[in-house]
Amino acid sequence: MDFTSERRLDDGVLEREFTLGEIPGILWTPGSTSEPAPLILLGHPGGLGKMYPRLVARAQRSAAQGFAAATIELPGSGDRPRSAAAEQARADLRRALEAGEPVSDEIVDALILPLVDQAVPEWRATLDALLALPEIGGPVGYAGGVIAIGVRLAVVEPRIAAAGLFAGSFVPRSMFEEARQVTIPLHVLLQWDDEGNDRQAALDLFDAFGSKEKTLHANMGGHTGVPQFAGEDAAGFFARHLK
Amino acid sequence: MDFTSERRLDDGVLEREFTLGEIPGILWTPGSTSEPAPLILLGHPGGLGKMYPRLVARAQRSAAQGFAAATIELPGSGDRPRSAAAEQARADLRRALEAGEPVSDEIVDALILPLVDQAVPEWRATLDALLALPEIGGPVGYAGGVIAIGVRLAVVEPRIAAAGLFAGSFVPRSMFEEARQVTIPLHVLLQWDDEGNDRQAALDLFDAFGSKEKTLHANMGGHTGVPQFAGEDAAGFFARHLK
Repeated sequence: MDFTSERRLDDGVLEREFTLGEIPGILWTPGSTSEPAPLILLGHPGGLGKMYPRLVARAQRSAAQGFAAATIELPGSGDRPRSAAAEQARADLRRALEAGEPVSDEIVDALILPLVDQAVPEWRATLDALLALPEIGGPVGYAGGVIAIGVRLAVVEPRIAAAGLFAGSFVPRSMFEEARQVTIPLHVLLQWDDEGNDRQAALDLFDAFGSKEKTLHANMGGHTGVPQFAGEDAAGFFARHLK
Repeated sequence: MDFTSERRLDDGVLEREFTLGEIPGILWTPGSTSEPAPLILLGHPGGLGKMYPRLVARAQRSAAQGFAAATIELPGSGDRPRSAAAEQARADLRRALEAGEPVSDEIVDALILPLVDQAVPEWRATLDALLALPEIGGPVGYAGGVIAIGVRLAVVEPRIAAAGLFAGSFVPRSMFEEARQVTIPLHVLLQWDDEGNDRQAALDLFDAFGSKEKTLHANMGGHTGVPQFAGEDAAGFFARHLK
């Protein structure tokens, strides 16, 4: 992990850009830390530049609670190389949505499964590197989308103690079997009136999770209109489980 | 409204039992109040005696936030006279549940609709009396079950500014039309694994509400196992809307 830039935000949070091999990422740590901070991995749909304003806001809210936060670029997004198959799947998805057709399982699988297969080991390698830093401790949470990445991470990565998942993207059918294997506490956010999202699939996925503690928060406001109080509720969830 | 008893709880909250005509009720006010307190009406499934431990806990949590809280006995519950029709509906319900049969719309209508028709005017009369007390101000919230009572109150009673509803009881089909007329902010609590409750009906009802701000919180723990953090989230909802 190589740090490539460093700056202090207004609230004292230290923001450092890094690269891990070819993967760019950002780490935020609280301004004043006496002991290693618990860590929240910030998931997002890809495109660090475009997502930056929302990510830094989430990181600053986490830092105010004493958490470090980190994110990495997704495979095939931002400045990372595109894969022909993923580009084809995105084009197929766009075509289906524009034609008002249902999005087939084939399109969802082609879009999401290779992404999960590639992104999850990258997140785990990032976690190795972050937990080697003296200012970062455990436990670790995962927060955000892509929900299928969060599900896989929750199953395969024992260092993740709790996950706040955003049910705002497509979920391959095969992920429902993985969802049953999830046992960590979950906080699932669903935008009820998110027209680009399959609400019933999100409810089915929530039902499938094996976790004894799982909470679904559904709100209005469309895909990007998550209300501020929903962020506060999610912060309470992580405060309960990562401290 | 006649006060029949008065005592101070450990945390300084003043608990007063009252009667309004034939209806018994309880009013809780914060220990230290400089100005009139906003009021939360505590809904419950009937049986003040049996429900008291949970009601007083909710009232004390509300009082800690500066809210007064009040509840009344439901028609046909506790020491109030039974109606033959309601007793018949309860017996029919019990029989259906014990036989593992689906609960018919007829049973739900017979059980809930007369209860709503009688309880809602009683709540409104109670509200008149409470708001005449100098220590109680507005705005007013309704919190709890029976959800059909909360829906009707939200439609017909303009003094109710926000409602936290517990989706844990049967909902007559005709209430879905009323739900569409609700416009106040709503916070709906659903116990996801509540075997005695129709989860799909609860989700359909949430979908039907006309409110621009509506939030659904689903948790595990069975009908009576609402987790403590769910109470804290609901408290945050009322703090946002009644202050």
